[in-house]
Amino acid sequence: MSAWLAPEPFGWEHQVEAALQEDIGTGDLTASAIPEEILVEWYIEAQGSGVICGLGIAEYLFSPRLEDESLEILANDGDTIVPGQIVAKGVLRAIDALQYERTALNYLMPLSGVATATSKLVKEIEGTGCRIIETRKTIPGLRMLQKYAVRCGGGFNHRMGLYDGAMIKDNHIRAHGSIGAAVEQVRKSIGHMVKIEVECENEAQVEEAVASKCDVILLDNMAPREMAAIIQRFKGKAIFEASGGITLDTIRSVAESGADVISVGSITHSVISVPFHMELS
Amino acid sequence: MSAWLAPEPFGWEHQVEAALQEDIGTGDLTASAIPEEILVEWYIEAQGSGVICGLGIAEYLFSPRLEDESLEILANDGDTIVPGQIVAKGVLRAIDALQYERTALNYLMPLSGVATATSKLVKEIEGTGCRIIETRKTIPGLRMLQKYAVRCGGGFNHRMGLYDGAMIKDNHIRAHGSIGAAVEQVRKSIGHMVKIEVECENEAQVEEAVASKCDVILLDNMAPREMAAIIQRFKGKAIFEASGGITLDTIRSVAESGADVISVGSITHSVISVPFHMELS
Amino acid sequence: MSAWLAPEPFGWEHQVEAALQEDIGTGDLTASAIPEEILVEWYIEAQGSGVICGLGIAEYLFSPRLEDESLEILANDGDTIVPGQIVAKGVLRAIDALQYERTALNYLMPLSGVATATSKLVKEIEGTGCRIIETRKTIPGLRMLQKYAVRCGGGFNHRMGLYDGAMIKDNHIRAHGSIGAAVEQVRKSIGHMVKIEVECENEAQVEEAVASKCDVILLDNMAPREMAAIIQRFKGKAIFEASGGITLDTIRSVAESGADVISVGSITHSVISVPFHMELS
Amino acid sequence: MSAWLAPEPFGWEHQVEAALQEDIGTGDLTASAIPEEILVEWYIEAQGSGVICGLGIAEYLFSPRLEDESLEILANDGDTIVPGQIVAKGVLRAIDALQYERTALNYLMPLSGVATATSKLVKEIEGTGCRIIETRKTIPGLRMLQKYAVRCGGGFNHRMGLYDGAMIKDNHIRAHGSIGAAVEQVRKSIGHMVKIEVECENEAQVEEAVASKCDVILLDNMAPREMAAIIQRFKGKAIFEASGGITLDTIRSVAESGADVISVGSITHSVISVPFHMELS
Amino acid sequence: MSAWLAPEPFGWEHQVEAALQEDIGTGDLTASAIPEEILVEWYIEAQGSGVICGLGIAEYLFSPRLEDESLEILANDGDTIVPGQIVAKGVLRAIDALQYERTALNYLMPLSGVATATSKLVKEIEGTGCRIIETRKTIPGLRMLQKYAVRCGGGFNHRMGLYDGAMIKDNHIRAHGSIGAAVEQVRKSIGHMVKIEVECENEAQVEEAVASKCDVILLDNMAPREMAAIIQRFKGKAIFEASGGITLDTIRSVAESGADVISVGSITHSVISVPFHMELS
Amino acid sequence: MSAWLAPEPFGWEHQVEAALQEDIGTGDLTASAIPEEILVEWYIEAQGSGVICGLGIAEYLFSPRLEDESLEILANDGDTIVPGQIVAKGVLRAIDALQYERTALNYLMPLSGVATATSKLVKEIEGTGCRIIETRKTIPGLRMLQKYAVRCGGGFNHRMGLYDGAMIKDNHIRAHGSIGAAVEQVRKSIGHMVKIEVECENEAQVEEAVASKCDVILLDNMAPREMAAIIQRFKGKAIFEASGGITLDTIRSVAESGADVISVGSITHSVISVPFHMELS
Repeated sequence: MSAWLAPEPFGWEHQVEAALQEDIGTGDLTASAIPEEILVEWYIEAQGSGVICGLGIAEYLFSPRLEDESLEILANDGDTIVPGQIVAKGVLRAIDALQYERTALNYLMPLSGVATATSKLVKEIEGTGCRIIETRKTIPGLRMLQKYAVRCGGGFNHRMGLYDGAMIKDNHIRAHGSIGAAVEQVRKSIGHMVKIEVECENEAQVEEAVASKCDVILLDNMAPREMAAIIQRFKGKAIFEASGGITLDTIRSVAESGADVISVGSITHSVISVPFHMELS
Repeated sequence: MSAWLAPEPFGWEHQVEAALQEDIGTGDLTASAIPEEILVEWYIEAQGSGVICGLGIAEYLFSPRLEDESLEILANDGDTIVPGQIVAKGVLRAIDALQYERTALNYLMPLSGVATATSKLVKEIEGTGCRIIETRKTIPGLRMLQKYAVRCGGGFNHRMGLYDGAMIKDNHIRAHGSIGAAVEQVRKSIGHMVKIEVECENEAQVEEAVASKCDVILLDNMAPREMAAIIQRFKGKAIFEASGGITLDTIRSVAESGADVISVGSITHSVISVPFHMELS
Repeated sequence: MSAWLAPEPFGWEHQVEAALQEDIGTGDLTASAIPEEILVEWYIEAQGSGVICGLGIAEYLFSPRLEDESLEILANDGDTIVPGQIVAKGVLRAIDALQYERTALNYLMPLSGVATATSKLVKEIEGTGCRIIETRKTIPGLRMLQKYAVRCGGGFNHRMGLYDGAMIKDNHIRAHGSIGAAVEQVRKSIGHMVKIEVECENEAQVEEAVASKCDVILLDNMAPREMAAIIQRFKGKAIFEASGGITLDTIRSVAESGADVISVGSITHSVISVPFHMELS
Repeated sequence: MSAWLAPEPFGWEHQVEAALQEDIGTGDLTASAIPEEILVEWYIEAQGSGVICGLGIAEYLFSPRLEDESLEILANDGDTIVPGQIVAKGVLRAIDALQYERTALNYLMPLSGVATATSKLVKEIEGTGCRIIETRKTIPGLRMLQKYAVRCGGGFNHRMGLYDGAMIKDNHIRAHGSIGAAVEQVRKSIGHMVKIEVECENEAQVEEAVASKCDVILLDNMAPREMAAIIQRFKGKAIFEASGGITLDTIRSVAESGADVISVGSITHSVISVPFHMELS
Repeated sequence: MSAWLAPEPFGWEHQVEAALQEDIGTGDLTASAIPEEILVEWYIEAQGSGVICGLGIAEYLFSPRLEDESLEILANDGDTIVPGQIVAKGVLRAIDALQYERTALNYLMPLSGVATATSKLVKEIEGTGCRIIETRKTIPGLRMLQKYAVRCGGGFNHRMGLYDGAMIKDNHIRAHGSIGAAVEQVRKSIGHMVKIEVECENEAQVEEAVASKCDVILLDNMAPREMAAIIQRFKGKAIFEASGGITLDTIRSVAESGADVISVGSITHSVISVPFHMELS
Repeated sequence: MSAWLAPEPFGWEHQVEAALQEDIGTGDLTASAIPEEILVEWYIEAQGSGVICGLGIAEYLFSPRLEDESLEILANDGDTIVPGQIVAKGVLRAIDALQYERTALNYLMPLSGVATATSKLVKEIEGTGCRIIETRKTIPGLRMLQKYAVRCGGGFNHRMGLYDGAMIKDNHIRAHGSIGAAVEQVRKSIGHMVKIEVECENEAQVEEAVASKCDVILLDNMAPREMAAIIQRFKGKAIFEASGGITLDTIRSVAESGADVISVGSITHSVISVPFHMELS
């Protein structure tokens, strides 16, 4: 795994254990009829194309516990994979292989889906210097892993949640009366390590935001041309994030408008799994 | 909520609390600058079409805690909704509304996505008496809620996990030597309330499975015509589940082949969220 | 451990840790005065007769952690044991042996009690083809382990709880109006892998239940002769469970009445521990 | 509830929630077919005699949540009850009544069993001034509640676990070389609020224990006459606990031997449930 | 509570419950002898001077549960208090008052200690525009509450932990070869909302750090005069944090050197509790 | 570690994991840019004098997981340490060393502070036979570890909490009417292993307490001379604990007054950390 994909998200082991519990519950009624000592050779094979993510979870589940068991991980998170590619294989007690199979694949498939969706957008804007990021529209309970998948797909992460970055939206502006007042109020209570981002819907708001000396400005639902003009005017005064209604068709023109980052909700709120299956013999 | 959608999946409140924790962490840096006593009116509006699922979670999060707060839930899980439809509204402290908004929507969007995908398949086979069910290919941690969403979409549930039904697949058959031996071994240890399903790839296997007196037979990856012939031959000897590579295009012919249930992995392993947003004023 | 006793109930390790916590709390005030490096030889000896259950927990607690420690498990769960029989022995740090002793025995004694009580009933009906099962009348928190003990004693398991089987009792029948209506309503919402059992108090009800095509019929508190007549009449139409007021004296005649399974509440709601003690030297 | 039965054991609510989870799991497949709004009248009736314990748990589970629900608790923990006695009744949603019924009874039955077993011993030694106490031989996870049940039955509690009292047994004596050395070593590390008890098998050991100025002396497996002689000789030098092989037949003579407390393992390691059932209408 | 002190640290209720458990364990042996129905009037009185913090926890513990109970909170977190000042009072069941007393005070005393220590430093640098912040040297498990106490004392917060801000220290610099390389590497993987701080020990390092365009520069263990010269030279190029060996005597000259924030480890790694006691009557 | 310091407080590993989580959260943004395979040599060095406590936690965190890692613990809890002393060193992955550093030190510093403060008092009363103990005024969540630190500093422990010893204070006396009544009531419900302590403010109360045959008498806020007279008069009738307003200046005269134990709140409610730092190379 290349270094910049690290760290493995903290605490995912507990989630994997909970997922096992969700599937195995009070015990596997079918596999328990197989004698404990029987070993099987297994492999996981991609049945589609994309960028793989989640091999660390497979490694966690299929690591040898007994002497005659073994494991080989044959790809790295972030690798492009093709149908028919074997990404991991090993030898394990049949009972364990049958019990861990579904959980391993249930992570590998949607996480690779997120990485693959991200990767398509990243390729589309190659060379522009612009970054693809996700939003807070994530599957509940899966946020850390989805954000990791975005990084595996070549993207970067927005703030993790409400606690590690300030984002002033229309509702905050309304509550404080103006962008200037909102930024001033927020700045009064946050620490010096916290960045402030302001969501703007038009040039007038961007002007106000720049005047407030916020760190990042979100250009919400603007046409690429409008964004380009605004970014041109305020270049260097803030980081610019483009967001809202951006598709594979329009993303390159948005990136070329000068936006520093483009946030796309669909790469995490919707998930098209990359198919994998596991074979035992 | 109509009775057959009940019960609310047991234990989801803890998952919602964990999702809140995932988003809010050590505290909302932006909303905390808004005075605590400020109230807002809010509403949640559908931005797409489909079948809604997850209103119970919105109700849980937005229930009034103070005297001047209020809540109205304007739809039921399982209802068909259209763009622009207001599905819930109320009055709440601004700070709370801003902190719960994302978590509420992060459940509503993908769960409605599952219900909607299910509903499309259900409509396609209307009148055939055949049922749509999901598989164990679910998003880790979200299985119970996804299964509830399948029911909201008009579908039914397969077993919850490895613990509440026996399913003999090719690997089990291989480990025991034959379908007959596998069923016999499994029957030796399970209780009288557990059904046994056998996965079959051809007519010869179905013959063996029927002879074993299993309860359910899964016809794996067969053409509708092949299935129809098999089901015709063994009618009444078992429940027949069709599975594998079934799409919106082929599903009606599969249902008309006489299958009792059709299981479709994509309704839970992939999720196209139905868009909703929340407005405050 | 013979294969059909498997699997070890999922998740029991956490319960054992909680039991240790319950006993050791903030620390063992007596053993802590013994130097850490002192090792002892220990053995666990049966002080009564019966069927043993719970050795896996002793193995978990007394497994060697240091190089000069050792462990031998000298019996298998499900074995018949006699007074004076050594069932496990080993070498361990004295402090650990003293701290784990009580918890190990506190599982071994009542679980062996459940296995022994089950075994007595099983022997009584030997050769009839009828099975002994427990009910949901279990000690709170110990259900999975008690059900495992029932299997160790030669019995089988009823459903695990309310979630893995439908059981229509008098209250459900009353709520729906009739057995037929109740079965129909329940069948509308459950999946194809769930069996339905109906509790019947007389032949008329059995007739209704058979007509509803439920999977299992519970004959509640009937005389063996009455059961025999009913089972004779409806043979092959359902699985028959006998329940209610059955004792060691009457159980054989119940089994011979043709019942497929006999459920006995007392094997789990009451527990006569088999005595074991641990000696250190 | 009379004051000396207090306090309700700390933290039992979490155990009850876990017991509910154990029974209900992913949802009640049968009750969910009953419309949510249907209410039932219910009552819990004793089907045997004894001392009741566990009504607080029934109260916790059946407390009204909705306006038209109600609850009456008709007995107190510690009361003697007779067959046919109604101990609690109320009005509740049918779905809730059906889901909580088993868990409520699964506590009430074995806890009343413990209280009843204790009570029989207490009555047997009435007037002697001697107290009945339990041992650490309890059902894992149920210790606090079983100790509460012992108090409800008129008994008293030994130490809760290894952490709230020092108990020097043969293994400790062997590790330290002598009773005197063991007491001295233990006293060196424990605080001034901790009592030390020494287990003695004969008069010579008692002499040593008295010389060590321990607080309590356990007379292990001695004949009542032998105990009487020892207690007579060392009266006032320590509290005397009698233990080992004491039955309903021998207990009065043990109590009359002058023992301050008699500990009986069977009142908690074995449990004969008092039968209760719940009726709905 | 003034708005900028909000929000109450997320999740502290669970910590308070754990603290109660730590103190009450299996039950209060002394208070349980007091009849349940007895009510007491109580008040909490300051026995020293300082800035109060932790009243929300007292409010959580002493909130009325029964009709004849009451509660008045007579100060706000962040208020200056004097010996003899009553900060809260009410009426409660005696048993509850006795059981919650210690836990309430065990939070109030050290948290007020942190707020008071912070406040002294804040007053010392009044008018300079410089802010006092804490470090990651906090009491394990108490970080969020200690950071809240710092805000109550008029200070501000550094990053919460390793996850919400990048801080490049000597070890990171050594691992990457240079400040420039370290900043470049870190920037490659972090998102656009994360600030980078670089710890510098001399002017040459500050020059490098400024060149790397990091957001914040930590001046480690420098004399105020040295800091003043550096800040003068690089004004506006970064936020400057002074740290290391700063005391009440030297802090004003550090603040006047132009530092934006001063971090002081001792306000959280050491704690001089402000004394409070609770009286019942 | 000398035997009487044992046992390591039960369950502290979970607290250390929670402290790691508190610091690392969703991942270390800075260290993750360092290649995973880089190893560092590290050591922990005392920067002040005192008695060390908490090395077991450092050992837990820095134990080798990979083959080329190593660890040496160079001191024992309870040892006197001097500035510049290396107390532990090893080789570890750089990423791990950077992530565990702060948590290890955040335990070592305040726990050594508690041990050091205790040790100063212990030395002050050397030779008197009197013991130093802490009170229940501890940092929430840290009680067990602080009590362990007190033992490392040469002190002893008071009761752990409300559950392992009865302490009758003024409020209890008032509730029951008199000391005699209070002791009698408490004795009615507690077991034979529980000691009763009575808090007395004057000689008349001590007289009453002695008459009640309680085990321990707390002399609250008395002058040493007054205490000496009381203890002289009632020698052998109870254990005497001195408490209230005792400082390093007055403690020897209190000890010489004949008190068996002296409890000092400040050694745990306030904490002056002993400074340690960790160097990597």
